[in-house]
Amino acid sequence: MEDGRVFEEGVSRRTLIKTAIGVGGLAAVTGGGFGFLSRAEASSGISKNWPWPYVKLDPEKTGELAYNEWYRLFCGGAVVSSIFSQLAETVGEPYKSFPVDAFIFLEGGTSGWGTICGSNAGANMVTNLIIGPRIAGSKDGMLMGSEVMQWYCDASMPVYTPKNPKIKSELPKTVSNSPLCHVSVGKWMQAAGKALSSPERKDRCARVTASVAYHVAELLNQWKDGQYETKGEIPGMLYGINAQLNCTECHGSNIPEPPKTKN
Amino acid sequence: MEDGRVFEEGVSRRTLIKTAIGVGGLAAVTGGGFGFLSRAEASSGISKNWPWPYVKLDPEKTGELAYNEWYRLFCGGAVVSSIFSQLAETVGEPYKSFPVDAFIFLEGGTSGWGTICGSNAGANMVTNLIIGPRIAGSKDGMLMGSEVMQWYCDASMPVYTPKNPKIKSELPKTVSNSPLCHVSVGKWMQAAGKALSSPERKDRCARVTASVAYHVAELLNQWKDGQYETKGEIPGMLYGINAQLNCTECHGSNIPEPPKTKN
Repeated sequence: MEDGRVFEEGVSRRTLIKTAIGVGGLAAVTGGGFGFLSRAEASSGISKNWPWPYVKLDPEKTGELAYNEWYRLFCGGAVVSSIFSQLAETVGEPYKSFPVDAFIFLEGGTSGWGTICGSNAGANMVTNLIIGPRIAGSKDGMLMGSEVMQWYCDASMPVYTPKNPKIKSELPKTVSNSPLCHVSVGKWMQAAGKALSSPERKDRCARVTASVAYHVAELLNQWKDGQYETKGEIPGMLYGINAQLNCTECHGSNIPEPPKTKN
Repeated sequence: MEDGRVFEEGVSRRTLIKTAIGVGGLAAVTGGGFGFLSRAEASSGISKNWPWPYVKLDPEKTGELAYNEWYRLFCGGAVVSSIFSQLAETVGEPYKSFPVDAFIFLEGGTSGWGTICGSNAGANMVTNLIIGPRIAGSKDGMLMGSEVMQWYCDASMPVYTPKNPKIKSELPKTVSNSPLCHVSVGKWMQAAGKALSSPERKDRCARVTASVAYHVAELLNQWKDGQYETKGEIPGMLYGINAQLNCTECHGSNIPEPPKTKN
């Protein structure tokens, strides 16, 4: 990492990760330079019990709930709500009491600032609240959240088409190569020629939210069956800086003119 | 906005905001193109009561708690914990039951991805959980969260110096001009010549966390006294895309080579 090679696109991300981690060595890495504490150091003072009870969900139903809930709670809140509302019915607490509506602020990349796409933030909330924080014994919650973010970066979005979409015509699909709202929405707006305030952009984001919720349900179901093997990584551990894993996406000539679409 | 002028640094942000909003017109704007629902549309289905009970906090004590808690829960969790742990003592529920440890995942810009600095994410959580989501009657929670983010962008960080810092020497201060972990930490690492894994970088982030928690306590105290007048804006409403308010910070020639500091 010292020679800066990791910042070159020519180097395979997977190769780098395998080199850095080694087979079965993730635990060693995650205990390293990023500031992670050992389980023994951190276990005191934890008053909550994890994992939270989980009953397997129908991904399709979860996607539909998230799609419709977007029009009330937007991206972050809708991902959490689509999963917690079902578990509130089948399991009850602590899902019933969880103040999901407060997380409407995740919209627009947190209060409209274009940072992390709310559906990624909501996914991380769900996986970490259900599986638990890494200091409670398992890193799978954080790693699953990270896995969803990489999947989001790579996917041709929106992946999921709702049964009764508000916009009947087909929507363009774009690959964000970034977990950020600004980049993800901006690339789609440019490809579609649609404004932020357009019904098409809104429905695109509702479908992205549904796509993420669907995938989170799939992964949680695997975890419940004891079959979850994470593809998630903690980029800060690998690159010497907290970052997405494709540096030249921003550090390069790849940054477009700001879109001129009308508000 | 159609001619792209808003993306030029020469245009005053304040002027733009005043032009776009008009005096007293924020409510009209926030009901506009961003997808915001009216209160009547959204009020059904809200099972929680807001605002949550709040007792004024000592900002200094809050900063100290956040600083020390960073070494257990890192940026996002520590901001929430510093405030909720005090309110759990003075008020009790719903603070006592809140699963704050799960939010350790906000570290490193969410699972090490360098997106929103966890202290900004934690600040938004606190203001929206206490004051409530905008669909519950007040936009102040979201606007206060946004105000903290702009303050974070503009501040020479870290602002707060703890009473007994782990690093005794003075730390360099930097202005992030961004709410993102990657940019904020990256600029500091470059100025300080310190790696992500260095004790100095960790203590810098602990102090940034304390700075944000201190400021959130100040703003919440104003709000409790009925004296809070927000400086927060929802950028997505003004710029036609969810974004930070200084476009040329990224859309320009301002992006450095990736830092070569060792991991």
